[in-house]
Amino acid sequence: MRDVGTLLEALPYIREFHGRTVVIKYGGAAMEDPALCEEFARDVVLLKYVGLNPIVVHGGGPEITAYMERLGLPVRFVSGLRVSDQDTVEVAKMVLVGKVNKDIVLRLSRHGQPAVGLCGDDGSLFRAARRAAPDGEDIGFVGRIEHVNVDVLEHVASDYIPVIASVGADAEGRSYNVNADEAAGSVAAAMGAYKLLFLTDVPGWLRDPGDPASLIAQAGVEEVESAMTQIDGGMAPKLQACVDALQAGVGAAHILDGRVAHSLLLELFTDAGIGTKIEASA
Amino acid sequence: MRDVGTLLEALPYIREFHGRTVVIKYGGAAMEDPALCEEFARDVVLLKYVGLNPIVVHGGGPEITAYMERLGLPVRFVSGLRVSDQDTVEVAKMVLVGKVNKDIVLRLSRHGQPAVGLCGDDGSLFRAARRAAPDGEDIGFVGRIEHVNVDVLEHVASDYIPVIASVGADAEGRSYNVNADEAAGSVAAAMGAYKLLFLTDVPGWLRDPGDPASLIAQAGVEEVESAMTQIDGGMAPKLQACVDALQAGVGAAHILDGRVAHSLLLELFTDAGIGTKIEASA
Amino acid sequence: MRDVGTLLEALPYIREFHGRTVVIKYGGAAMEDPALCEEFARDVVLLKYVGLNPIVVHGGGPEITAYMERLGLPVRFVSGLRVSDQDTVEVAKMVLVGKVNKDIVLRLSRHGQPAVGLCGDDGSLFRAARRAAPDGEDIGFVGRIEHVNVDVLEHVASDYIPVIASVGADAEGRSYNVNADEAAGSVAAAMGAYKLLFLTDVPGWLRDPGDPASLIAQAGVEEVESAMTQIDGGMAPKLQACVDALQAGVGAAHILDGRVAHSLLLELFTDAGIGTKIEASA
Amino acid sequence: MRDVGTLLEALPYIREFHGRTVVIKYGGAAMEDPALCEEFARDVVLLKYVGLNPIVVHGGGPEITAYMERLGLPVRFVSGLRVSDQDTVEVAKMVLVGKVNKDIVLRLSRHGQPAVGLCGDDGSLFRAARRAAPDGEDIGFVGRIEHVNVDVLEHVASDYIPVIASVGADAEGRSYNVNADEAAGSVAAAMGAYKLLFLTDVPGWLRDPGDPASLIAQAGVEEVESAMTQIDGGMAPKLQACVDALQAGVGAAHILDGRVAHSLLLELFTDAGIGTKIEASA
Amino acid sequence: MRDVGTLLEALPYIREFHGRTVVIKYGGAAMEDPALCEEFARDVVLLKYVGLNPIVVHGGGPEITAYMERLGLPVRFVSGLRVSDQDTVEVAKMVLVGKVNKDIVLRLSRHGQPAVGLCGDDGSLFRAARRAAPDGEDIGFVGRIEHVNVDVLEHVASDYIPVIASVGADAEGRSYNVNADEAAGSVAAAMGAYKLLFLTDVPGWLRDPGDPASLIAQAGVEEVESAMTQIDGGMAPKLQACVDALQAGVGAAHILDGRVAHSLLLELFTDAGIGTKIEASA
Amino acid sequence: MRDVGTLLEALPYIREFHGRTVVIKYGGAAMEDPALCEEFARDVVLLKYVGLNPIVVHGGGPEITAYMERLGLPVRFVSGLRVSDQDTVEVAKMVLVGKVNKDIVLRLSRHGQPAVGLCGDDGSLFRAARRAAPDGEDIGFVGRIEHVNVDVLEHVASDYIPVIASVGADAEGRSYNVNADEAAGSVAAAMGAYKLLFLTDVPGWLRDPGDPASLIAQAGVEEVESAMTQIDGGMAPKLQACVDALQAGVGAAHILDGRVAHSLLLELFTDAGIGTKIEASA
Repeated sequence: MRDVGTLLEALPYIREFHGRTVVIKYGGAAMEDPALCEEFARDVVLLKYVGLNPIVVHGGGPEITAYMERLGLPVRFVSGLRVSDQDTVEVAKMVLVGKVNKDIVLRLSRHGQPAVGLCGDDGSLFRAARRAAPDGEDIGFVGRIEHVNVDVLEHVASDYIPVIASVGADAEGRSYNVNADEAAGSVAAAMGAYKLLFLTDVPGWLRDPGDPASLIAQAGVEEVESAMTQIDGGMAPKLQACVDALQAGVGAAHILDGRVAHSLLLELFTDAGIGTKIEASA
Repeated sequence: MRDVGTLLEALPYIREFHGRTVVIKYGGAAMEDPALCEEFARDVVLLKYVGLNPIVVHGGGPEITAYMERLGLPVRFVSGLRVSDQDTVEVAKMVLVGKVNKDIVLRLSRHGQPAVGLCGDDGSLFRAARRAAPDGEDIGFVGRIEHVNVDVLEHVASDYIPVIASVGADAEGRSYNVNADEAAGSVAAAMGAYKLLFLTDVPGWLRDPGDPASLIAQAGVEEVESAMTQIDGGMAPKLQACVDALQAGVGAAHILDGRVAHSLLLELFTDAGIGTKIEASA
Repeated sequence: MRDVGTLLEALPYIREFHGRTVVIKYGGAAMEDPALCEEFARDVVLLKYVGLNPIVVHGGGPEITAYMERLGLPVRFVSGLRVSDQDTVEVAKMVLVGKVNKDIVLRLSRHGQPAVGLCGDDGSLFRAARRAAPDGEDIGFVGRIEHVNVDVLEHVASDYIPVIASVGADAEGRSYNVNADEAAGSVAAAMGAYKLLFLTDVPGWLRDPGDPASLIAQAGVEEVESAMTQIDGGMAPKLQACVDALQAGVGAAHILDGRVAHSLLLELFTDAGIGTKIEASA
Repeated sequence: MRDVGTLLEALPYIREFHGRTVVIKYGGAAMEDPALCEEFARDVVLLKYVGLNPIVVHGGGPEITAYMERLGLPVRFVSGLRVSDQDTVEVAKMVLVGKVNKDIVLRLSRHGQPAVGLCGDDGSLFRAARRAAPDGEDIGFVGRIEHVNVDVLEHVASDYIPVIASVGADAEGRSYNVNADEAAGSVAAAMGAYKLLFLTDVPGWLRDPGDPASLIAQAGVEEVESAMTQIDGGMAPKLQACVDALQAGVGAAHILDGRVAHSLLLELFTDAGIGTKIEASA
Repeated sequence: MRDVGTLLEALPYIREFHGRTVVIKYGGAAMEDPALCEEFARDVVLLKYVGLNPIVVHGGGPEITAYMERLGLPVRFVSGLRVSDQDTVEVAKMVLVGKVNKDIVLRLSRHGQPAVGLCGDDGSLFRAARRAAPDGEDIGFVGRIEHVNVDVLEHVASDYIPVIASVGADAEGRSYNVNADEAAGSVAAAMGAYKLLFLTDVPGWLRDPGDPASLIAQAGVEEVESAMTQIDGGMAPKLQACVDALQAGVGAAHILDGRVAHSLLLELFTDAGIGTKIEASA
Repeated sequence: MRDVGTLLEALPYIREFHGRTVVIKYGGAAMEDPALCEEFARDVVLLKYVGLNPIVVHGGGPEITAYMERLGLPVRFVSGLRVSDQDTVEVAKMVLVGKVNKDIVLRLSRHGQPAVGLCGDDGSLFRAARRAAPDGEDIGFVGRIEHVNVDVLEHVASDYIPVIASVGADAEGRSYNVNADEAAGSVAAAMGAYKLLFLTDVPGWLRDPGDPASLIAQAGVEEVESAMTQIDGGMAPKLQACVDALQAGVGAAHILDGRVAHSLLLELFTDAGIGTKIEASA
């Protein structure tokens, strides 16, 4: 590098974000493509070094499905939610906590900032409850987060980058699959995060999902809420999590294109304005 | 309970152990029998409440083997060590970290003391290295612990009960199976533990493995070392871990019968003298 | 001890009381019988070890009377209050602070938890004022507690078991006899204690003082208040202290039989339900 | 006061003593004459306010004797040591701890700095042992201090002025009379005090006890040691305590005339050079 | 010094002021006469030693004027305010910050308490704004203090005596001359000082400036306010600063005669009642 | 900015420097050219934000000379040292402390990190002593630094960027001009800095001062020392300061070209290898 000027262009953003908590929902291509994985780890480590307090929340659907299939277990979704009998939850939890989570932890540590993996069970981070079945169909152990206990998170975040796998148990100790988008939103809300960022496989919130040119660059909570019924697919839980987090006081939420290298840094440290930004009032 | 006298009989032991770290290798029947599992959790929670600093280290061989078989993967051991190709390590790690570890964490939390699960990757707790192959045979990703980074352990232990799954990675991020007995010994040594306790499926160290009456109640390090070549089976790594920990300054090591309910409390809080006690000098 | 099960039966209670302050009014047989004295000291030391914050408040009437008689001083009571000229207060203070208090301090220390003796003068713990004379008769330097300065108590309690002799001085430095039951209640109220426990020489609050079978196992504050006019003897100041403490926010108050060994532990760590329990609402 | 110049003359001394511990053996006229008592309390409170860390150690022989006589107990001394059967020790302890100590505590508190009274039992401050009998005669429970546990002293001194009564118990809990001069020396040595000051009823160490003009203004430890055999009366234990404290690293020891008002302040805050100053090397 | 009694006469005042912040406006003869300078430094160092938290605020008009004249720059005042073009501000700042301030800092340090000099720029202590021109005339860069940022002051004051030169800059970084009386008042208000003291060259507030016998010993804020229009010369900004500080919660303000040695100590540590005392209500 | 890649190229350097102290000698064109001044301030603020601990040390020769001339004072140098009578020192101190220093402080604060200006007098940072006269000629109050008191520096640096003007006083309070290169070296040595960086008006250390192509990119301490006699002009004190600092344990020293924008960042955050790097061993 000969041109340090770009470092200085980041200065106003570094100043703004210093000491702030940002919750990053990690998933999609950025979690599957090995090169993007590496870049993501470097990005997050850089955030920690320049004084932010990043918290990573992840799911891991494709890897779960792959193991389900290797084990000959049926894979079925209802309204985008994985139908989860006890066997499914056990496999999902193993894959998320024992494989996906630790891969992220190892990668962050190798780039210079030790991370600690957590799931909803650790320090009683999440108290989950069984989710009402959509359309009355029983989808099993699919949970929603009733409560986030931030004690363990703040304890860990003071020295390490927390990496959270989205599984949790109820008061009786029964484990549940929890949607990672929702988990990220709940964590951001509980921590009073400055920003909530979703890494996705689309350019952002598209008015017409088939047309990248229909990207909505900026929207207010009301706008998102009034559009919710027309939205389907994976974008719905993300937008819902944005709405919930913003209403709980989170500063802003972003839907970013995780297929673009460093979309995280581009959003945070430049005025490029990539993806969709959602604020409490548009 | 009408008879609180037994509480007071524990007083001299509570006094002795107050503020001390005890590392407990958890495994065998105590980890498989549901009733014993519950009792174990209550015992450890009680230890924390009365002022000790318990650290639980666990393996999970049978559960790993069960999943290997469900996945149609070959299960093979050489000299008691699981031959581990990359697929095997991945499955072992998922089972240990994502299932066995969280079961323990949940159970401890439910009894009133929040626990946090860790593996060697979290906070760079373990740096592992490939183990020399026994008899020159390649057994794959089976590691030994080169270094224990106690920072994360002390950080977590100040507020939570740490529960450690015995897997670790090397400097390049390659994961290894690590023998849990050895891991417990390394953790005890690094933490300068007061006691190292092994929960096993035998009454203790038996002079004649087939004869429970041949229990050795007490032994010195030299005695164990000189007997090492004649010992085989699962007792060997335990005794080796005892020797290593004692030589690193751990106060005493115990081989206990985990099939007996509350053997942990019986050893710590009574003068019953169950199992085998090994000290630096006999 | 072979049966550690009793330890575990105490677990739910240890969990409940962890970190809580309990104020114990010590007196009667438990303070006179040498064997009961030893058991009391062990009980209190155990409470400290398992994470409670015990504070002992004591009087010492019989020992004061004994010294008064040896010195040829008149011993007289009006409505249960010791008529106290300046000579009497001096003797009482010497006996309580210099003898009874230090005996308790030494005994607790010998059982493994260092204690520090305090009286109302130390760190200006109590500010006393002359008590209105009952029936218009002048009873001299008998005081009530106007203010408890918890600074010194919290400072000492962070590392030691505080043992408090119930004497105090007014703003001009004049010393007063203070009823120990009242002192215990004031300390419990000022510290926001979880429980206030009275060790007495009766089974509890008896509807008919002559009939042990008339024990009232449980009562509410209102019930106690409406019965106060009919109560006399030593039970009156105890019940009044209970009422005052409960109205100031103390969790519960107990009248226990100090002649029963370990009544303290039985009350706290079992569901035996001995003595009388008084709560804000019955 | 119109002349604040004297305040400024004290400045070099205040600067020198800031943050330093000074141990003051309090006794004699300064503890008996009511006016001197008040002046002493004001002096010590001033020391605390200007940044020193004063610790008061006291005996109380005359008050003990008076109570002994009121109780009809025999009063006898051998080589200046009070012959002490168990009854004597009990009375002495009551008088010292319950009367003399609290009088000092109250007076200091009234002048604006809360004090906390301690005896050797509190926080296990002193561990005493039976003193060898002089001339083979059994003098009973007269002790010497084997160990000073400074924990409680430092804990109390951080917020309060500690006032120490010179009684202590052995490991079995038996109480002993301890010479207050010796106690002051032991405390100064254990705390690494900057100065040890004795308030006496003489102008200082006199070469000829009958001749005030024979005052030795300054002396080295060797000089004192070589003169020890010729010294008798109350000066001997004071000089011995000075020697012991200086050899343990205390900066200087002073024998002051407590009958002179403010001799403490005159010594510390002026260059008047009153009394006798003893240093490690003359 | 033979007479330590004067030390004790100060005790009630030391007790009252312990831990309190006093802001001292330093100027006039006390800052020009070398002997008075030395005495002032000793006084302030003594205040720090006896537990007060002194903050010194100073101007330096005569020294500024002298340098202005040496540089051949015009010196002009309008309504007592120095007409300040950019050159004037630069010279004034250099003289105040680089000469007057450091002279005070060095003198305090030499008397035993290290001081740290600050101006409005350090730690963004002052945010200034251009002052409205009196009588419509442009007087240039003469500022008033919009905001005092106490962070740096509290940080420095925890270990050092802060010495503040009365210059400050606006948000764009333009520097201004700030009246030192006003600065002292603003600092006292922002710090919630216990007292604000002005060292002047007059005996206090005089009803008739020509008649020292017309000294007003005590006044209430209302009295000062209603008299403000009749007051002119240097007394006006001082009285205005007193009013502002008292209305912001400062305990009391004093106009003292800095030509009298130790007027600071006389006011604080005696009941001499020199100068004028102004309180919130007379 | 569209290209955040450059941010990530800085990551290895940010990682290396995290928590490290770097001392920057600021001077020359970078302190005179307004645009370079702004860039310098942004660079230093960025260093603070990304976790370094920058300390700025500055002189200000040209501004001093300009004021000397305006005041009609003689300007004379002997062996590169300013001949300094008392008048000269006073002017130099005013200019450095009251003008140059505060300009830097204001500029840093405006870019988002509050700075605090210090000179050798503040918190007794420097103890200076008169420098031996070169060639026997009396050059007046030119000092060298005998001692750096890091207390005030560490106190200030914990929350602010310290900016140090190179003047200091001796134990008697006489002020001296101190060479800023030497001051920077002394500060780096006392703080155990990781790096010492000189911003100069040349490309680095040139073998032939007239030939920019003769730049020495890297050198060891021995090499510099053996070349010292041949070096003259402003480079000599810089190289001497490098040698002194390196011998006191500073990690590396750099001579940079301050005329190049961001030479500081280029050196620290790229592998460009600009200027001259001097290490303990070449």
